[in-house]
Amino acid sequence: MKKILITYALRREPLAELFEKYDVFMPGDKDMKREQVLEMIPDYEVLIPNFSFYTDKEIMDKGLKLELISNYGVGYNNIDVDYATEKGIAITNIPKTTCEPTAELAFALLLAAGRRIGYYDRKLREHRAIDWGVYGDAGLSVFGKTLGIIGMGRIGQALARRAVASGMNIIYHNRNRLSLEIESRYNARYVSFEDLLRTADYISLNAPSTPETLQLIGENELSLMKPTAVFINTARGNMVDEKALAKALKEQKIWAAGLDVYENEPKISPELLVLDNVVLAPHAGTKTIEDRHNMALEMVHNIVGFYEGKYEISRVNP
Amino acid sequence: MKKILITYALRREPLAELFEKYDVFMPGDKDMKREQVLEMIPDYEVLIPNFSFYTDKEIMDKGLKLELISNYGVGYNNIDVDYATEKGIAITNIPKTTCEPTAELAFALLLAAGRRIGYYDRKLREHRAIDWGVYGDAGLSVFGKTLGIIGMGRIGQALARRAVASGMNIIYHNRNRLSLEIESRYNARYVSFEDLLRTADYISLNAPSTPETLQLIGENELSLMKPTAVFINTARGNMVDEKALAKALKEQKIWAAGLDVYENEPKISPELLVLDNVVLAPHAGTKTIEDRHNMALEMVHNIVGFYEGKYEISRVNP
Repeated sequence: MKKILITYALRREPLAELFEKYDVFMPGDKDMKREQVLEMIPDYEVLIPNFSFYTDKEIMDKGLKLELISNYGVGYNNIDVDYATEKGIAITNIPKTTCEPTAELAFALLLAAGRRIGYYDRKLREHRAIDWGVYGDAGLSVFGKTLGIIGMGRIGQALARRAVASGMNIIYHNRNRLSLEIESRYNARYVSFEDLLRTADYISLNAPSTPETLQLIGENELSLMKPTAVFINTARGNMVDEKALAKALKEQKIWAAGLDVYENEPKISPELLVLDNVVLAPHAGTKTIEDRHNMALEMVHNIVGFYEGKYEISRVNP
Repeated sequence: MKKILITYALRREPLAELFEKYDVFMPGDKDMKREQVLEMIPDYEVLIPNFSFYTDKEIMDKGLKLELISNYGVGYNNIDVDYATEKGIAITNIPKTTCEPTAELAFALLLAAGRRIGYYDRKLREHRAIDWGVYGDAGLSVFGKTLGIIGMGRIGQALARRAVASGMNIIYHNRNRLSLEIESRYNARYVSFEDLLRTADYISLNAPSTPETLQLIGENELSLMKPTAVFINTARGNMVDEKALAKALKEQKIWAAGLDVYENEPKISPELLVLDNVVLAPHAGTKTIEDRHNMALEMVHNIVGFYEGKYEISRVNP
């Protein structure tokens, strides 16, 4: 019987098939630490890593029986993929169940940043901190504006679908230009990275975290944006220079931001925490009761599918 | 030359055509009080009333020359329409420029209430008040859920368009059932008021404020909703029993609410201000720089159109 090491405290219900078919260890309440994983990993064929530490060479070298790393997320920058591939360890992720909730949160943050939802909600709870007058504390409109999507994969396209129905025009930048069929679905125009930064009213980061996208948005990129630009990041925190972003927001070089991810989660730069033109979420792209459940099922199917071929799996390395 | 009394302190730029063609009075900074309006109205042919007091019989009786009340909003429950009609005073409103921004804010609040945007933004600014764990402080998904729209006019339909693209199913209740053509555009199903309350996951109020819709949502209606229901109001505060809503939210009889309007604006029930499962906005349905501008233009066109026939106008009484 295969042994499975789950490093999170997840709910048991959607994991039923795992507990039925395999020998599963899962912590009772707190997420496992790196040291515990290093100690236990030699006995396990399958690892479900968490995002609080990197699944690196040392862990894989100690995992003498390791066959599969089954990630409970779509982004897998928490895993040394090249080394896993070298050692013949399979890696799977869960793109199906994470796409819509993440696009949903990105659009929620976009609307919240433009229409000042977080700001209003905070200020109304203070005594007379809000100006109810015609132009007082006014937001920025979304309808009729241009959304620039950086990374037009599944999530970027699910965001575009929402944005188009909300009256937005879509431009995008991607490693590869999409087919005309997909472009025409969203009336989306492919532009250079620099053109996107210069011309978009709203800019959303939806690319994967890779060595190429590390610190993609820094002081220079922020300086190219419009003073009325609204920047949204629901991808990964390490793609943005957080200090530079806080500075641009503080100095009103850009108008607002909506952020779900940070360079040093769960820490958020203190500069950001005091700004009124940013709306913050705690890496909540998929943080709903239903989505966490569906994600666990997709992850289970990756494992059962890997061993039994019963389900189609999403493998990220050859 | 017609005399126009603007009771708001609006920006002059979009009003240029008024200032050019008519004799306009507009206060410098603060909105006018009822007493000032009563004093000045005898000389004016056109009144642009504000929402902080009711334009009633007394004002109209003193307005001996009054020909037109041109409202700077789509809802006109701030005006005694029947009495105006009786006196032959025309009333216009601005449905074109208010539709999309209001639907946009309604959807922003819907997403914010479900995905807990206001809550996250407030709590992250406090020290360690948020649980970053897998299921900690989780929200409710929007994708795949049923949105019940009460009042399926222009704004309700603009909301439906956004919701459909976000993966929602639409049910609605309206004074009159819509045409099959409109229903099929949103795959919307007409249901009774009670069925809507019982079965919708998200409920949005988008009906006009009339004697029939006064206190439409009270304790009884709230008790019919699902315990996971999310209630959104961007219509008018007097359509909801605010105390009963606060009680239902506090006792978690429903899951959350997103509110833009209140029974006694700009006052908000203190009970609401301390709840974590409500997200609050300051009657900001059209509160963006661009939309306030466009609304002023539409209002100007109603006045110029009324006197010159140059523009199509939106008249609300015969």
